[in-house]
Amino acid sequence: FLSIRLKTQGPVEQYGLKRFSTAEATVILRENGKMREKTLTMDTLNPQVKAVEYAVRGPIVTKAGDIERGLQQGQKHPFTEVIKANIGDSHAMGQKPITFLRQVVALCSFPELLNSSSFPEDAKQRARRILQGCGGQSLGSYSASQGVDCIRQDVAVYIEQRDKGVPADWDNIYLTTGASDGIVSILKMLVSGQGRSRSGVMIPIPQYPLYSAAISELEAVQINYYLDEDNCWALDINELHRAYQAAKEHCHPRVICIINPGNPTGQVQSRKCIEDVLHFAYEENLFVMSDEVYQDNVYSPDLQFHSFKKVLYEMGPEYFNTVELASFHSTSKGYSGECGFRGGYMEVLNLDLEVKAQLVKLLSVRLCPPVSGQAAMDVIVNPPLPHEPSYLQFHKEKSAVLGALAEKAQVTEQTLNTVPGIKCNPVQGAMYAFPRIFIPPRAVEEAKSLGMSPDMMYCLRLLEETGICLVPGSGFGQREGTYHFRMTILPTTEKLKVLLEKLRDFHIKFLKEYASLEEPKR
Amino acid sequence: FLSIRLKTQGPVEQYGLKRFSTAEATVILRENGKMREKTLTMDTLNPQVKAVEYAVRGPIVTKAGDIERGLQQGQKHPFTEVIKANIGDSHAMGQKPITFLRQVVALCSFPELLNSSSFPEDAKQRARRILQGCGGQSLGSYSASQGVDCIRQDVAVYIEQRDKGVPADWDNIYLTTGASDGIVSILKMLVSGQGRSRSGVMIPIPQYPLYSAAISELEAVQINYYLDEDNCWALDINELHRAYQAAKEHCHPRVICIINPGNPTGQVQSRKCIEDVLHFAYEENLFVMSDEVYQDNVYSPDLQFHSFKKVLYEMGPEYFNTVELASFHSTSKGYSGECGFRGGYMEVLNLDLEVKAQLVKLLSVRLCPPVSGQAAMDVIVNPPLPHEPSYLQFHKEKSAVLGALAEKAQVTEQTLNTVPGIKCNPVQGAMYAFPRIFIPPRAVEEAKSLGMSPDMMYCLRLLEETGICLVPGSGFGQREGTYHFRMTILPTTEKLKVLLEKLRDFHIKFLKEYASLEEPKR
Repeated sequence: FLSIRLKTQGPVEQYGLKRFSTAEATVILRENGKMREKTLTMDTLNPQVKAVEYAVRGPIVTKAGDIERGLQQGQKHPFTEVIKANIGDSHAMGQKPITFLRQVVALCSFPELLNSSSFPEDAKQRARRILQGCGGQSLGSYSASQGVDCIRQDVAVYIEQRDKGVPADWDNIYLTTGASDGIVSILKMLVSGQGRSRSGVMIPIPQYPLYSAAISELEAVQINYYLDEDNCWALDINELHRAYQAAKEHCHPRVICIINPGNPTGQVQSRKCIEDVLHFAYEENLFVMSDEVYQDNVYSPDLQFHSFKKVLYEMGPEYFNTVELASFHSTSKGYSGECGFRGGYMEVLNLDLEVKAQLVKLLSVRLCPPVSGQAAMDVIVNPPLPHEPSYLQFHKEKSAVLGALAEKAQVTEQTLNTVPGIKCNPVQGAMYAFPRIFIPPRAVEEAKSLGMSPDMMYCLRLLEETGICLVPGSGFGQREGTYHFRMTILPTTEKLKVLLEKLRDFHIKFLKEYASLEEPKR
Repeated sequence: FLSIRLKTQGPVEQYGLKRFSTAEATVILRENGKMREKTLTMDTLNPQVKAVEYAVRGPIVTKAGDIERGLQQGQKHPFTEVIKANIGDSHAMGQKPITFLRQVVALCSFPELLNSSSFPEDAKQRARRILQGCGGQSLGSYSASQGVDCIRQDVAVYIEQRDKGVPADWDNIYLTTGASDGIVSILKMLVSGQGRSRSGVMIPIPQYPLYSAAISELEAVQINYYLDEDNCWALDINELHRAYQAAKEHCHPRVICIINPGNPTGQVQSRKCIEDVLHFAYEENLFVMSDEVYQDNVYSPDLQFHSFKKVLYEMGPEYFNTVELASFHSTSKGYSGECGFRGGYMEVLNLDLEVKAQLVKLLSVRLCPPVSGQAAMDVIVNPPLPHEPSYLQFHKEKSAVLGALAEKAQVTEQTLNTVPGIKCNPVQGAMYAFPRIFIPPRAVEEAKSLGMSPDMMYCLRLLEETGICLVPGSGFGQREGTYHFRMTILPTTEKLKVLLEKLRDFHIKFLKEYASLEEPKR
């Protein structure tokens, strides 16, 4: 009297769940012998949720967690430690917090400490100011949906200074829950239309998969423009035109997203290139989303970060007063690496005023971003000044972090380029290397027979044999037939060198194992 | 050569934006004299975003902010202070944080304080444990997408104790960014189908407008079931059947949401009623979402909070092992009132394992809930024990908050019921009174001629004349032809009494002003 529906079991294990008997999982026998289906199954799940992919925390990372737990329980592996180079999570890799930032957050959290002599006066002054801006002078009150006023003001001042005087209005500043929250909110506003008039969103390939995930969830149309790997992952304006023209056939391109410095690709965009993009956006009436969370992470001494807003200003009022631009920043990256606080902001330019009211309304449903994250953001935009007591220590800590990152960026690129079958562009900025890897045809075939992308198989093997956790390039997008991985440059220099050595050995062994009569192609 | 599109200006001012010249806002003249439309306008905005409404932070609140700023700048009003009784924001209304909670958060934020003798040992022990669970022992690392393991474990232990031994598995616990984040995530999973098979979501009326906002955004079908105002806002099981049967004609009802204790209605659901709802959900194969953020806010001495999970357990394994349930809790309410930290958790029961993997995937795109909010949540589920040094002070602070709230609940109900034309149910729990107000027919007509709901006009007038900021009942839903407002019971007892007196005077004046030959009806 009982029929059982069989399902494939693939996706279950991917996220580290225990394998289960199919019969138990989707079917429960009622007392009267009737079958009872669950309400929420893979068949009834929101298909837009199903379509979402996010490799940075995908199956490889789950597997790494399993192995880590296994090691703790005494399981034997050919290594003693899992090295997680999959995610830009600085503190998890041993980076110490910036003292001043944490002092301010602690003072805000427990204002009795304002009476303690062990906290410097400038930290106390910041904390008092933030608390003044909070309802009931407490971090425990909801802030306005756009964030605490005085922090938004500090952000505006910071942007003006960063951009050498280009005016910033704090009415255009919205504090957010990390940058992700702001990016998704703006995208959400921009999606409309059906069929051929559905909003198209131009994103770089390779991209940070938050973009593709949000596009899936919102059922927008993803328009890929490919970065030029042979040219240090530069953005090629002709490629923008190509992608735009092709997409116009089946959707309404309305947005262009840029990540600068690049994630996962680490390039720092030139001023000229930014101007070209803005000109293109102006001509084609595109909304510009500029992800600038790595603005403090530029390592090549001959390069510098230019904000899209500053360049837009320099292009003259015809551009500055028309192009709709949202740019994003975060506490999670830079030199502070405060991911856990989920602090961030966005600045919008030229947003229609009614639309702005709609944005505030949309944000208000979630009430407000975490106020301690807002406080952390405040420190980043309002750090100690040269005459203040915390200046020296702050400056020393900041320089140490950025100096070490610059060194590791170089070590990573150089070492990877010594490995046959690996080619790595300079890590000019951000926190990642995204080298191209040669995968022998026999390995490609084997991966395909396993229903896996070849770089996924490569990364899985690497994890199992060395304990190194990377993210396959397929999670970010790459040109057909090319393979990559993303690795962070965040491990300590010592650990990074060990990682790179193991990676080289693995790669050489991998090439040998799958060697055929053909020579490796680069 | 320039034509100008005119637009109505209504919605702009609602959110406190400056009035603008229509021509400037949507039209900008190009150098060549061609019109340039903005990319993102009210016409091209995502219609689902446009459909979202959230009265708790709506136009009245914006107006209150404007008046407040006006007062600071010396503008004259018939009052000297705006009293914000629109939102459950305890600290903004003067409630002091729980010392122990803030000590733990401060210790986690600035671990050097672990060496300070001015922090009690039990707070240090909590902080050490939380930091052990964080990557690099830092609050600045991303946590797992589901939250820090040891905090999830503490939540499970808390639930078991609260529910007198009903087992809780920490694998079913997900930490969230406030409760809102969890509620929206679960709803997002549940929405699918088109036309008559589109997911229907049953929500109480009156409801907390997060639900209607999320339903709008997800384009799900809202199914209203009306709470019984004449019976202390009890949930009537016959009304559930009615609503379900009616909705089946045009959608696929898949979810039932319950808020217990009720927001905005303040009722505490009886055990019997919960059992009826669960039986109904079982029979009709509905996913149950139980919003229990006010579980610590029960004031009537003869009532107690029963969790949906505990009742489900007591109904026997046939129910406990089948009904899909998600329940939600938060740091924002209860006795701690820590809204700004955006802490919360959800517990899911009987979720299909593949679906669970999808949920983790969905959450992972946003990386993790704020870790300081997770730490705050930990204190709430793992407070000082009787033998620990902080126990007495913690207990005293907690009791003081809850005792004052109970007193204010009673004062509010009693005072409101002395006003002719106002009828208020007992405030059994949560943080709000939701009295029914008589609005004279002439006032109803006037409001309609202004294109406003009558209770909106009432609340606007109240704000302008007394400085009291409430939310009109229309923002929560109410039976056609009835009018209400929601007010929090959070002001200090002294201020609350002033508020209630002013409210009474206003109401009587309002009735007189619009009096017609008819007698007020109740």
